[in-house]
Amino acid sequence: MSATPDSAVRAYIEEHRSAFLEDLAEWLRIPSVSADPDRAADVRRSAEWLAAKLAETGFPVTEIWETPGAPAVYAEWPSGDEGAPTVLVYGHHDVQPAALEDGWATEPFEPVIKDGRLHARGAADDKGQVFFHTLGVRAHLAATGRTAPAVNLKLLIEGEEESGSPNFPALVHARADRLACDAVIVSDTGMWSEDTPTVCTGMRGLADCQIDLYGPDQDIHSGSFGGAVPNPATEAARLAAALHDADRRVAIPGFYDGVIELTDRERELFAELPFDEAAWLRTAHSYATLGEEGHTTLERIWARPTAEVNGISGGYQGPGGKTIIPSAAQLKLSFRLVAGMDTEKVQQAVRDWVAARLPAGIRHEITFWGATRPCLTPLDHPALQSVVRAMSRAFGQKIRFTREGGSGPAADLQDALGAPVLFLGISVPSDGWHAPNEKVELDLLTKGVETAAYLWGDLAENGRSTQ
Amino acid sequence: MSATPDSAVRAYIEEHRSAFLEDLAEWLRIPSVSADPDRAADVRRSAEWLAAKLAETGFPVTEIWETPGAPAVYAEWPSGDEGAPTVLVYGHHDVQPAALEDGWATEPFEPVIKDGRLHARGAADDKGQVFFHTLGVRAHLAATGRTAPAVNLKLLIEGEEESGSPNFPALVHARADRLACDAVIVSDTGMWSEDTPTVCTGMRGLADCQIDLYGPDQDIHSGSFGGAVPNPATEAARLAAALHDADRRVAIPGFYDGVIELTDRERELFAELPFDEAAWLRTAHSYATLGEEGHTTLERIWARPTAEVNGISGGYQGPGGKTIIPSAAQLKLSFRLVAGMDTEKVQQAVRDWVAARLPAGIRHEITFWGATRPCLTPLDHPALQSVVRAMSRAFGQKIRFTREGGSGPAADLQDALGAPVLFLGISVPSDGWHAPNEKVELDLLTKGVETAAYLWGDLAENGRSTQ
Ligand SMILES: [Zn+2]
Ligand SMILES: [Zn+2]
Repeated sequence: MSATPDSAVRAYIEEHRSAFLEDLAEWLRIPSVSADPDRAADVRRSAEWLAAKLAETGFPVTEIWETPGAPAVYAEWPSGDEGAPTVLVYGHHDVQPAALEDGWATEPFEPVIKDGRLHARGAADDKGQVFFHTLGVRAHLAATGRTAPAVNLKLLIEGEEESGSPNFPALVHARADRLACDAVIVSDTGMWSEDTPTVCTGMRGLADCQIDLYGPDQDIHSGSFGGAVPNPATEAARLAAALHDADRRVAIPGFYDGVIELTDRERELFAELPFDEAAWLRTAHSYATLGEEGHTTLERIWARPTAEVNGISGGYQGPGGKTIIPSAAQLKLSFRLVAGMDTEKVQQAVRDWVAARLPAGIRHEITFWGATRPCLTPLDHPALQSVVRAMSRAFGQKIRFTREGGSGPAADLQDALGAPVLFLGISVPSDGWHAPNEKVELDLLTKGVETAAYLWGDLAENGRSTQ
Repeated sequence: MSATPDSAVRAYIEEHRSAFLEDLAEWLRIPSVSADPDRAADVRRSAEWLAAKLAETGFPVTEIWETPGAPAVYAEWPSGDEGAPTVLVYGHHDVQPAALEDGWATEPFEPVIKDGRLHARGAADDKGQVFFHTLGVRAHLAATGRTAPAVNLKLLIEGEEESGSPNFPALVHARADRLACDAVIVSDTGMWSEDTPTVCTGMRGLADCQIDLYGPDQDIHSGSFGGAVPNPATEAARLAAALHDADRRVAIPGFYDGVIELTDRERELFAELPFDEAAWLRTAHSYATLGEEGHTTLERIWARPTAEVNGISGGYQGPGGKTIIPSAAQLKLSFRLVAGMDTEKVQQAVRDWVAARLPAGIRHEITFWGATRPCLTPLDHPALQSVVRAMSRAFGQKIRFTREGGSGPAADLQDALGAPVLFLGISVPSDGWHAPNEKVELDLLTKGVETAAYLWGDLAENGRSTQ
């Protein structure tokens, strides 16, 4: 355990909590909706507000990084200690669209505190979780008597995450020198629940594509020709159906090559989580579970690669019937990838599989929309252990492990910077990301501040081993 | 061979040919497009014109039969001979839409004779083929010296065939007493080619349906939930793919129950036809053949039941990708049926098959759009032999056999009247049914007149055995 007096951290946070919340509320009033071109000026104002606030916090370097889209904010606070590890915090300052008429109880860009919760668009995703790092580093300094953090602290807060981070990979690659670090801390995720604090250890990757199939040059009559020529809608269906075998494993040859399988320990840890399948099905708006044989639901969504049909179309779609063989059909597929899989190899496996399965008379085109790599930090990684210790001091509880089924820009940082990605998020599923009435639990927000306050000292002590 | 002097028939036809063509041209000028509500008065005018012309031809009974849609024309000419068989001719007086700007070389409703062809909408489908029966019966009387035909001749010429004959089955059932007959002659089909005169011996039936599949109550995120809940687009694809086995046979249990298999003789006769697969593929706008293993293309389209995907849809269909699991998907399927199959049993087999294949968590609805029964007249049927003899006298050639892959109201007549359906059509594939520049070959039209002139005497001689 670190020597940092936890009570000093708590006292500092308590003293500055209301000013911190007032500042956060000011930021939340800026409607930085990156998807809305009319809000471009607000997104820029949000970046400038944050840069100024980080300077005020003490970061000696604060910069606005332009992109072809919305600007990112970069800040740097060197430790001054010889050999201190370097840590990069990732988050985003843009938010999802929100309007009162979508079902908000209060104005989404007028923050309201009620019953221990701060309600506003961006309260949890992601302004609240970015902002706990400001008070966090101040509490770290106050409690340790330092004038600079125990690690070389960098922040990169992008402005287009809610628009799919279109310019983020290029930005990271172009600025890789400035961003160089020993570990990335992503503060844009959640925990299992208020009662069960967790650390996320990885995200799935993504490769998605469109497959266009062409048969007859025009729709033809199913009476005159039916049963004697290939039908592209049938072939699209046969491809989509062949994605999975009878055990709902992905049946594309080579798809599982390199997959890092769950260890028995990881499966045990997943199984220890208080998973309520009926409640989970409600969040999935679904009526049954279905997936790869031999795996639990949590294993399926967190740690297994998948193939999904996102869209399928071909032929007549109006009312009633029309007895045609359509001239074309289309499939939109997405593949979630797990650690150990190579996105390029998966894409090639899909291309080969499609080409091998189509009969003569069906032409095809396949287009991949790009790929996001999976990321995973092993449970025994020293930097992960630092996060777990810092959280357990803040929460006074055992910290458990989760993963994230979705895919995000974290992997771009992992790949471009060659550093492990760690997740420090205090949001809970009820926070309503991307939904009306988004909120953050003030207790958890405070725990986030406290975790950040403990984390830098712990990482510095264990700094050597994060490299 | 009948004793009718063929030369007398030919002389009579030659004498009356130009008046016959002038009358036909007058009828073709009436744009009786049943699909166009603005043409309803023209469709009625067409029915009235035909009824008057049939009365002028000598039919003592001519009636307009009203339906909830367009009117049909009914005519009757009793033989007067004791025990004469009764024959019902079926055709239609409505036509497909046509407009000069669709690519017609001349006005579609201004008939033009050029290079031995009569160009006009309806020239082949079906006014020309209905109309050859008028001069046909007159030539029959002139050559035999009779004052009434050798058979009790009935005509039923409907007005909604090009709109799917929505009121035809009800009309036939309601008027079954008046329509009672020993054989139905359908003059609304074609021959193999000008050089290869053929008789069609049957049509496939049709059952088509829509299957709606429902999964999550709304589209859900494929990252958060992918791989763990059922996806209705995947299930739609799995259903469509399971329609056929690896040999492209329909894999629905019970589907083939009752199918009357082709005899070796029928397969030989099909194989004797001068089938040019490359040319056929061009008419199919397709690049390869594909169908049930162990059958030729002609067997597949004429004599084998099929399952086709007419439409498939579900999930995202816009540009680019969208990583969702869709909440719903839809399949539109059509099944072509051959003689021996029961439409209700096929529908039930499809319902059972769908219900048995869907996983928990996927709800479904299945809607059949109705069904058309298949029809088939055996090669050795005496009435079919009469048609073959009459045609071979007119064409001076061996008559070969075809079938029709499509489905039509002929089967309604077969079922409602309990009579065999025979096809007497002289149209050829190049006539351009439903296309711009429809035409009929005047030589073949004359052969149709001549066949009709021989047919009634032959059927009367063989009348007993048609019952
Ligand atoms: Zn976020
Ligand atoms: Zn027709």
